[in-house]
Amino acid sequence: MRQLVELKKAYRLLNHGPTVLVTSAHAGEQNVMAAAWNMALDFEPAKVCIVIDKNTYTRELVEAAGTFGLNIPDRSMASATLAVGACSGKSTNKFATLGLATFASQEISAPLLEGCLGWLECKVIPEPHIQQRYDLFIGEVVAAWADSTVFSDGHWHFPPGHSRSIHYIAGGTFFETGEEFTAA
Amino acid sequence: MRQLVELKKAYRLLNHGPTVLVTSAHAGEQNVMAAAWNMALDFEPAKVCIVIDKNTYTRELVEAAGTFGLNIPDRSMASATLAVGACSGKSTNKFATLGLATFASQEISAPLLEGCLGWLECKVIPEPHIQQRYDLFIGEVVAAWADSTVFSDGHWHFPPGHSRSIHYIAGGTFFETGEEFTAA
Repeated sequence: MRQLVELKKAYRLLNHGPTVLVTSAHAGEQNVMAAAWNMALDFEPAKVCIVIDKNTYTRELVEAAGTFGLNIPDRSMASATLAVGACSGKSTNKFATLGLATFASQEISAPLLEGCLGWLECKVIPEPHIQQRYDLFIGEVVAAWADSTVFSDGHWHFPPGHSRSIHYIAGGTFFETGEEFTAA
Repeated sequence: MRQLVELKKAYRLLNHGPTVLVTSAHAGEQNVMAAAWNMALDFEPAKVCIVIDKNTYTRELVEAAGTFGLNIPDRSMASATLAVGACSGKSTNKFATLGLATFASQEISAPLLEGCLGWLECKVIPEPHIQQRYDLFIGEVVAAWADSTVFSDGHWHFPPGHSRSIHYIAGGTFFETGEEFTAA
């Protein structure tokens, strides 16, 4: 079940470095791309960093809307995660082509993707210099959600056998999030 | 065996989102801290982002030296990864206290940590506004290394049973990098 995540604990959704799917929407158009280059930036107010290349349709939509969604896919969505990087939303409705179902976000224009493990709704904090020079965007997290089966009370707790988050490398190769352990 | 990593493939050391240890040195002082908030930023020239809080001794050393090292620890170093975050280098020589052995980097002032899986030597690209406002640093990767047992030809390939990279969450809890798989 989808539940709200306390904003000051939203960083924990990204802290282990999963690859995310970035959703965006503006003026009736919407898109989705994959991004391994994301990280938490602050606890409270919760902030994130994400790299969005100038050549992407997502970039146009995010700059126009001033918001974006981060969706944390599980292993069952690895093929879709690859596929959204292999075509452009300028020429393809990736949601329709890949059969990606969405639901409405609460605070932003972008839709969020059904079947993910967690979601962050983000509002761009305008930093034109680093956006232009490095394709680097800073977002304030204005709402966060997680599937309570895998994340609740501010912690991930994947049930045995449950599909986990994924970490892209290159050439179609991913790592699945592995064993949880506690260090002392 | 430690081998050079081609700079344009250095991003692959960080692409799966491991927690890193940040080493720094200036004027005879050196330090190490942990950072889950890191990501690749560009392929060529290779760049990275890292968050370095204003209250850390690492911040002083990195700003003074203009360089830092990123060291990718394996699970056997998880306790040390926690421990370096639990004390300040201002009052403690963490290397001595925690028994962390180092070797000399090639291009920067910071030492690198023995026993890690990979290493990135980084030169700060000065961006005073985001350093001050967000504690966000951009570094150009000027040399990169990996243990060829686990990374070679631009790819991770952990042998069965080999200790893997780690992904911090909170409260002493980590995930180990899990199963590798290829999506089509």
